[in-house]
Amino acid sequence: MSIQLIFEFLGTFVFAMSGALAVGEKGQEHDWFGASFIGFVTAIGGGSLRDVLLGSYPLVWVQDVRLLYIILAGIVSAGLFYPVVVKLKRTFQLFDTLGIALFTIVGTEKAISLGFSAEVAVIMGMFSAVMGGVLRDMLTNEIPVLFRKEIYASACMMGAIIYLVLMDLGVERNTTFLAAVIFIIITRLVAIKYNLSLPKFGRQV
Amino acid sequence: MSIQLIFEFLGTFVFAMSGALAVGEKGQEHDWFGASFIGFVTAIGGGSLRDVLLGSYPLVWVQDVRLLYIILAGIVSAGLFYPVVVKLKRTFQLFDTLGIALFTIVGTEKAISLGFSAEVAVIMGMFSAVMGGVLRDMLTNEIPVLFRKEIYASACMMGAIIYLVLMDLGVERNTTFLAAVIFIIITRLVAIKYNLSLPKFGRQV
Amino acid sequence: MSIQLIFEFLGTFVFAMSGALAVGEKGQEHDWFGASFIGFVTAIGGGSLRDVLLGSYPLVWVQDVRLLYIILAGIVSAGLFYPVVVKLKRTFQLFDTLGIALFTIVGTEKAISLGFSAEVAVIMGMFSAVMGGVLRDMLTNEIPVLFRKEIYASACMMGAIIYLVLMDLGVERNTTFLAAVIFIIITRLVAIKYNLSLPKFGRQV
Repeated sequence: MSIQLIFEFLGTFVFAMSGALAVGEKGQEHDWFGASFIGFVTAIGGGSLRDVLLGSYPLVWVQDVRLLYIILAGIVSAGLFYPVVVKLKRTFQLFDTLGIALFTIVGTEKAISLGFSAEVAVIMGMFSAVMGGVLRDMLTNEIPVLFRKEIYASACMMGAIIYLVLMDLGVERNTTFLAAVIFIIITRLVAIKYNLSLPKFGRQV
Repeated sequence: MSIQLIFEFLGTFVFAMSGALAVGEKGQEHDWFGASFIGFVTAIGGGSLRDVLLGSYPLVWVQDVRLLYIILAGIVSAGLFYPVVVKLKRTFQLFDTLGIALFTIVGTEKAISLGFSAEVAVIMGMFSAVMGGVLRDMLTNEIPVLFRKEIYASACMMGAIIYLVLMDLGVERNTTFLAAVIFIIITRLVAIKYNLSLPKFGRQV
Repeated sequence: MSIQLIFEFLGTFVFAMSGALAVGEKGQEHDWFGASFIGFVTAIGGGSLRDVLLGSYPLVWVQDVRLLYIILAGIVSAGLFYPVVVKLKRTFQLFDTLGIALFTIVGTEKAISLGFSAEVAVIMGMFSAVMGGVLRDMLTNEIPVLFRKEIYASACMMGAIIYLVLMDLGVERNTTFLAAVIFIIITRLVAIKYNLSLPKFGRQV
């Protein structure tokens, strides 16, 4: 079992959980089917958009039915732990942070392995990570996460660039994977803790 | 002419009508082009998403230009009958219910015939049915239908499962088609009449 | 360098600019990464949707990395000119109008050159032009541009039809391109100036 597949499974699980939990967190009264639907879309949205844009068929979850059961497990876990985690905003953010870090690298790696350029790979890494959450927010009529959070998608983009630079320098692959994932997680957690954001557009550019 | 094609045509017609009517129903002041655009997206949205996710090209409406004229007929019918139906909420719901029932089975059947797994077929059946309406609601900034209605997408999913179980038991195909369609319609109409919904997520799971 | 490619490059540049500027215009406090993201989605959204629906792979911007740098240049230009243009609503509308005119013809031409029907080509021309803006509006929770503006997507559709009619009449290709683009620009500018819109749906149809 490759590290890429482990990352894909783990990222899918935490995204399904974060999708279902996000609903509960906002206090909206979704039924369990609606919550599961959002968990599912959050989990598959980013990777599906990446594969559709790249024309990489069949999609991962269409081909590998195990991913559907991993998503189901994530949703059920979210429901079981709901009374505890709904009050712990940081827990939700941790799941989301872990998910975006893993998916960034999975997406970047996949685009490169399919022969696309480094620029496209960086975009696809970022899309894999954030677009599931963007779809989740569009479905629930929220302002998409990447326009309201502290440093978020930009951390994914930086992580993807670091991954490509380290690979180009000949660093061993698993080390490169872990370095980029840890960079994204730490950047994001520091940004949350100190409420860091980027300069506004059109001011002092 | 296969029953699948008849269902596809009929479902497309009622979805185009329901898309254009939904706009009028909300009292929003769309011009006829905007209403037609929404009718079009409602009619092709679910099936297009299904085919794009499955990588099944060319898309049905791209290949078969008759579907575009069926959509046009649905929109014109909605416009002609507008003064009558805009006050009849139940009529709109009947069109929508017929559309989701037909598209669920068309989508499930198509995924199976392309060789995908039963799990994927159930999801594709449901997506075919509800995603046109979800796109319609996202375009008009509404809370997507599947988060505000009584039992809705879950009835489609159950109908898709019933279809697959009956097929697996060797029941004749047209009977299976009709049984699953009727199950979805009745479930949905009963849910509307008695205002039935599923339990909330995270409570007593 | 073909006129089609020049149009694609120019349309991409102005759409990236209009996407980033649209954010500033609304007074929302996006950071530069969020503004760039919206500029990017606005620039690639319509063409990507067209190519995904047609199954035309690889997507233009995935294959031709120059487009990514053109988008970057558009976003940076928008940032540099921000203090000036944010107060000039007409400037923004001019960029947007130029973008939709160019993309309509690029999209129509592409669908025809891939062998699709005239009906599908007209829809794909319109989708290329307006769907980037629709995605931009969905991301920022605005009512999509085609439901709130004066004559907009309908001008694109008419331009696409004019293009196909002139081509069918044997008019020289570059002349046809320019005639259709100029038709869309003038129609749109006149509609803005005199606040023209189409009749409401369901009234006097």
